Amino acid sequence: MQIEAVEANKSLQSVEDIYRFLAEHNVHRTDIIHVFGGGVVCDLGAFAAATFKRGCRLKLYPSTLLAMVDAAIGGKAAVNHFGQRNLIGSFYPAEQIILHPEFLGSLPEAELRQGKAEMLKAYLIDGVLTEPDLAPHSTPNPAQILEYAHWKMQICSQDPLDMGLRRILNFGHSLGHVYERLLEFRYGHGDCVIAGISGELELQKADITAEDYAQIRQSIQRYPLPEGLLRDIEKLDFHSIHSYLKQDKKADAKGLKLPRIKAFRQVCP
Amino acid sequence: MQIEAVEANKSLQSVEDIYRFLAEHNVHRTDIIHVFGGGVVCDLGAFAAATFKRGCRLKLYPSTLLAMVDAAIGGKAAVNHFGQRNLIGSFYPAEQIILHPEFLGSLPEAELRQGKAEMLKAYLIDGVLTEPDLAPHSTPNPAQILEYAHWKMQICSQDPLDMGLRRILNFGHSLGHVYERLLEFRYGHGDCVIAGISGELELQKADITAEDYAQIRQSIQRYPLPEGLLRDIEKLDFHSIHSYLKQDKKADAKGLKLPRIKAFRQVCP
Repeated sequence: MQIEAVEANKSLQSVEDIYRFLAEHNVHRTDIIHVFGGGVVCDLGAFAAATFKRGCRLKLYPSTLLAMVDAAIGGKAAVNHFGQRNLIGSFYPAEQIILHPEFLGSLPEAELRQGKAEMLKAYLIDGVLTEPDLAPHSTPNPAQILEYAHWKMQICSQDPLDMGLRRILNFGHSLGHVYERLLEFRYGHGDCVIAGISGELELQKADITAEDYAQIRQSIQRYPLPEGLLRDIEKLDFHSIHSYLKQDKKADAKGLKLPRIKAFRQVCP
Repeated sequence: MQIEAVEANKSLQSVEDIYRFLAEHNVHRTDIIHVFGGGVVCDLGAFAAATFKRGCRLKLYPSTLLAMVDAAIGGKAAVNHFGQRNLIGSFYPAEQIILHPEFLGSLPEAELRQGKAEMLKAYLIDGVLTEPDLAPHSTPNPAQILEYAHWKMQICSQDPLDMGLRRILNFGHSLGHVYERLLEFRYGHGDCVIAGISGELELQKADITAEDYAQIRQSIQRYPLPEGLLRDIEKLDFHSIHSYLKQDKKADAKGLKLPRIKAFRQVCP
């Protein structure tokens, strides 16, 4: 079956449509569900596979750069609900994730950029990675894609249930998700994450060394943010931002915890 | 929040109602969701807890004998869908299961009997257990409840994802589930399981020793099946039974595998 890869389709309704397809085709839990697509489709398909007959076999074939280096890696299976991203879901690692870099040739520049944004985020967290090439239309080579996918998988496998270490991957995402929502998904996920990193960097400026601050600031300035995003963010109401931040799935009763740049700068070389 | 403990409420709709309650109360994944109730409520609440924010903390307080010795034990989290029991769900063991035998004092005899049916099933699988008292209105003592709960937990912990060993627990359930559905849930789950054991025993008669056959037959004859159940089962159409059996969630592409009495009689002393 096919599902249009738009954020609005990452819903419980789509999950039910998949359940119907699986039931009609008499799929057993020992059968393999093959999911081809970007982050939306991988997250959605993985959640359906995780919950049909209490879990079927699952293989993912991410088709965008964002999905190859980030979305499809680490067992995320989730859909949006009540207007909140990934509110409903589970952790359900695929038994295999197959990367076909040839898929990238068909991606528009703006889509490719969203993947590079997550690569830049990973690079800022852990300098051990090779620096991503942010030039428009450039495509990371297969070795670099594998390097980033492996890096994320390694972080996730050390913290499969997102209880600690894995939160460093959230750098830029708390604010980034709020920007995405308040700007009604007019901008890409990666673009909003880079804007989020910029905001989280300012919030933690007093907590980190001048050198770390300058290095991160310089790196994100090289990222080609789309026209208008920063201007639109400046117009946002502080109280709306604050209220959405508190609903963050990774928040606890004491309120949101941003990944601390100081802490991961010490852990990762 | 409260949910009426009827099979029809074990639905995706109820799960969404719980999601709404959790979201409105700003529940975080580090918060504990406490679920009080019988099998329906435990299965439903556990599935909501398993999937809200990709998994919240969970404690179960089973309030029926059936839930204490069976339904709440082993990480089942599931709802019915497309008329199939537990079609949608996941494995999500509670961090704690609290047994309050005092709850049993408030149970009607028919409800108590459903729990004894699962105890009888366990006893037939593994003679190491103490024999359950099937007399009407008798209540197993707390030590025996704990014995049966521990026994099931042990089986499940050796096979958390239901890939092998755990299937012995399914004794009587393949046919039992079909009887429940075809008789439109007019009879209790435990009652149908005992009728299912009777049927599965006949199907495997040639495969087991005369001694095993006689012992199982004798034991289930002591179980007080409700008036009319066996008569209603005899009226059922063979083809309907066969067609439902093939949809069993534990079936694979090669068709249903009944737990083999011969095999578990050899494994369990």
